[in-house]
Amino acid sequence: MNENMEEGDDVLLFLDHKRTYLVNAEKDRIFHTHKGFLDLGKLVGKKYGVRIISSQGVEFKALKPSMRDYIFKMNRRTQIIYPKDISLIILFCDIHNGSRVLEAGTGTGALTCALAFHVKPSGVIYSYEVRKDHADIAEKNLKRAKVAEFVEIKNKDVCIGIDEHNLDAVILDLATPWSVVEHAYNALNGSGFFASFSPTIDQTIKTTIALRENGFVDVRTLECLVRGIRVELGKTRPDNLMTGHTGYLTFAKKAYNCIV
Amino acid sequence: MNENMEEGDDVLLFLDHKRTYLVNAEKDRIFHTHKGFLDLGKLVGKKYGVRIISSQGVEFKALKPSMRDYIFKMNRRTQIIYPKDISLIILFCDIHNGSRVLEAGTGTGALTCALAFHVKPSGVIYSYEVRKDHADIAEKNLKRAKVAEFVEIKNKDVCIGIDEHNLDAVILDLATPWSVVEHAYNALNGSGFFASFSPTIDQTIKTTIALRENGFVDVRTLECLVRGIRVELGKTRPDNLMTGHTGYLTFAKKAYNCIV
Amino acid sequence: MNENMEEGDDVLLFLDHKRTYLVNAEKDRIFHTHKGFLDLGKLVGKKYGVRIISSQGVEFKALKPSMRDYIFKMNRRTQIIYPKDISLIILFCDIHNGSRVLEAGTGTGALTCALAFHVKPSGVIYSYEVRKDHADIAEKNLKRAKVAEFVEIKNKDVCIGIDEHNLDAVILDLATPWSVVEHAYNALNGSGFFASFSPTIDQTIKTTIALRENGFVDVRTLECLVRGIRVELGKTRPDNLMTGHTGYLTFAKKAYNCIV
Amino acid sequence: MNENMEEGDDVLLFLDHKRTYLVNAEKDRIFHTHKGFLDLGKLVGKKYGVRIISSQGVEFKALKPSMRDYIFKMNRRTQIIYPKDISLIILFCDIHNGSRVLEAGTGTGALTCALAFHVKPSGVIYSYEVRKDHADIAEKNLKRAKVAEFVEIKNKDVCIGIDEHNLDAVILDLATPWSVVEHAYNALNGSGFFASFSPTIDQTIKTTIALRENGFVDVRTLECLVRGIRVELGKTRPDNLMTGHTGYLTFAKKAYNCIV
Repeated sequence: MNENMEEGDDVLLFLDHKRTYLVNAEKDRIFHTHKGFLDLGKLVGKKYGVRIISSQGVEFKALKPSMRDYIFKMNRRTQIIYPKDISLIILFCDIHNGSRVLEAGTGTGALTCALAFHVKPSGVIYSYEVRKDHADIAEKNLKRAKVAEFVEIKNKDVCIGIDEHNLDAVILDLATPWSVVEHAYNALNGSGFFASFSPTIDQTIKTTIALRENGFVDVRTLECLVRGIRVELGKTRPDNLMTGHTGYLTFAKKAYNCIV
Repeated sequence: MNENMEEGDDVLLFLDHKRTYLVNAEKDRIFHTHKGFLDLGKLVGKKYGVRIISSQGVEFKALKPSMRDYIFKMNRRTQIIYPKDISLIILFCDIHNGSRVLEAGTGTGALTCALAFHVKPSGVIYSYEVRKDHADIAEKNLKRAKVAEFVEIKNKDVCIGIDEHNLDAVILDLATPWSVVEHAYNALNGSGFFASFSPTIDQTIKTTIALRENGFVDVRTLECLVRGIRVELGKTRPDNLMTGHTGYLTFAKKAYNCIV
Repeated sequence: MNENMEEGDDVLLFLDHKRTYLVNAEKDRIFHTHKGFLDLGKLVGKKYGVRIISSQGVEFKALKPSMRDYIFKMNRRTQIIYPKDISLIILFCDIHNGSRVLEAGTGTGALTCALAFHVKPSGVIYSYEVRKDHADIAEKNLKRAKVAEFVEIKNKDVCIGIDEHNLDAVILDLATPWSVVEHAYNALNGSGFFASFSPTIDQTIKTTIALRENGFVDVRTLECLVRGIRVELGKTRPDNLMTGHTGYLTFAKKAYNCIV
Repeated sequence: MNENMEEGDDVLLFLDHKRTYLVNAEKDRIFHTHKGFLDLGKLVGKKYGVRIISSQGVEFKALKPSMRDYIFKMNRRTQIIYPKDISLIILFCDIHNGSRVLEAGTGTGALTCALAFHVKPSGVIYSYEVRKDHADIAEKNLKRAKVAEFVEIKNKDVCIGIDEHNLDAVILDLATPWSVVEHAYNALNGSGFFASFSPTIDQTIKTTIALRENGFVDVRTLECLVRGIRVELGKTRPDNLMTGHTGYLTFAKKAYNCIV
């Protein structure tokens, strides 16, 4: 991996967990924070991980943005899927270099970015989004995260049909996932993965039933809860507040009807 | 992805969620189950996803094993880390094609397999294991999962030192992670990822303090709970039993002491 | 509270969390365990809390059974509601000395016992149970827990109607709680409490809708998860396994339609 | 239970879950809300549960405050213990009419109120509070909840000693519960209950060890998570945000050292 910040490279300025800023290392660029300003030109040619001091004497760390940072920093208009849910999708669906994946809807591209990051360089993400304005934002977010070349955004309604075939996975984050189940079946390879994220139990039930009726097997639903722990010597305890719910994840695999 | 089962290929025979069998498609190979026997030779040349009927008339699905299946089917002597925890490590540490990762201890290779699967083909896993017997089992498990060529298992104690440099991530699942923190710092790239999995809160506290004292930033601990949902029309409810705890995950990033 | 074990008094023999026995202090009574036998006559006249040694030299503690112990030790044929759920019902419904409460179905009386224990001596529990065999078991369980005199078990179907009026609370643990909502409304005092325990989300939804359509206000549903923590110096961690789900609790209060 | 609102009686004005107001039914008393004003005199002589319309035409329900409402509406300066935790303490410690209970520290009296409500009329709560200002607020809160006569607030440090004997339960919500364990042992009846609420795991560990070393048995620690469910036809889902942690609950029972 590249260790140095070159002119224009993305940098995550880290003050603490709640205060991070996605900026660019750039000559003559000044960045203003409530803790004073920073001369981002100083970062050019230095290693990721160095510290930089603001005009008020406050120390920031200049970190390399991770995919998780890109997701949280996205220009977003829609509710984004959380890293905890994305990570389970990646693991359960074997998303890795070379995977050919259909995703819908693109939204502002949070899940798209993460998927693209894991299928590159040999794989591809076909991402369907019915709303042009979302697709445009997603395009920008993908470029910023440097994964745009592995994604084909299609301004189409996936509920009407899927153009691709022999897909390794179909991954849905949309209002009516059950209406895509039959298309997904036709577009997938044998043993291919289906995954759907839905906030409500009603969507989850409808999708599960559609999967069972359409030749999918190993159909399962789960929810994932992540709780932060505040570690402090002599005063360790979980966080007071936590995210109680984002959505249910439903997974399945395509089986053929034919019997050998 | 290859769609057909060739002679010798791994196949996951799926009866239901609790009854799956990892076998090989092989001419003249008979597989015995409590639901009758199956002629595995019938699978050769067929597509993954077909159905096969046992001598007692019970239908099994012949699925392509996923990385998650390999993990659960491993020949194991040690407690393995769960998919839910593995998936968060992969996401938080940006494990993808090309990553250079140190892992310790190897154990029987569950986490190793998953990491290797995601760094291939350009990346590499250096996996330290002090016990020779575990390293040998892990080697077999890696071969079975077809990722052995991306892993270098080292029969060494990581607490004594790390040979590698410029690593992208150091990932620990061992009894005394705090004793590796300084070595990890030296072996990592700037902004490189540290992750540690520990069953007890005491290990977690010691590791966190060591990280804070050794130049790591963005230090955070979390726990992940996954609950299954039984979806049945008119009778949907979460599973009665769930895994209440596997371990705490502690993440951090390396920052340099130098100030620009 | 009475401190001494008299002839015939209930005693909880405590070996460890998983091995406890509900017995009686009784002259000439021998109790056999897999750790040897105990002479229960020795307990008569002694204080609750003393220790008693088995013929194999193993120490048991002779504790006073708590209401929670009676619940767990019940002769049961039906799934019982858990203490965590009972405790929330007691708190949310202000169950205390003097409360007049309708409960249905009785089942084998676990919830009935706990409710009776908290309304005595001035209150009363009207407990409807359609199955005679369950009612009979419950009667015995109530006697054992010494609260039978505060309970009137009625071998009737609560879905058909409720005989009582001016109740402080109606508490349901049955298959079709929504069918009791209207009867509950008529039987309750103004501002009276409704509570229902249901394993499935479908029951919960139907009940909630019936409550909203029938003049109830402050309608809310929650679920309660309890996780045990294994405290051990240097090795503290949550339990591996936990109860992931028992049921959803739905609460409401009766409001009158009239406007002042 | 009394059904009518008499002059001066407490009333909970309910608009929705987040907007409730604890007021008094009183002639010539006007109550101002952001939804207009209400003439509280109209409530006198009416039944709890009626509806009252504000000057802006918004409907409020006039409910009888439950103990849970009193707890949430308390004049508080300290963090209060949550109903979910209070309810488990009441159930695990058999708090009922007649119980003689020591509690410390009083804080602003939330737990005290709930305990008093359940031990009345025959029981008593001895509540130790080292800070005079807290004790004074608690006294007012107890009077408002009409349970002051069942509580003896003592402006004393419970860590120095406990005056009472033959207690049924000792319940602690203070910074150093382990320093009270020996006093609790001496003050309790045989088989008497100990309960302690602590936000940090460190307090919990120290307390557990003190209990094990001081003759307590059946020592256990747990944590309780409550998650709200938003029930809406076709759109049911858990709440987005939940309380991830309040504290750990540690329970134990006193055993004598003597062997029968």
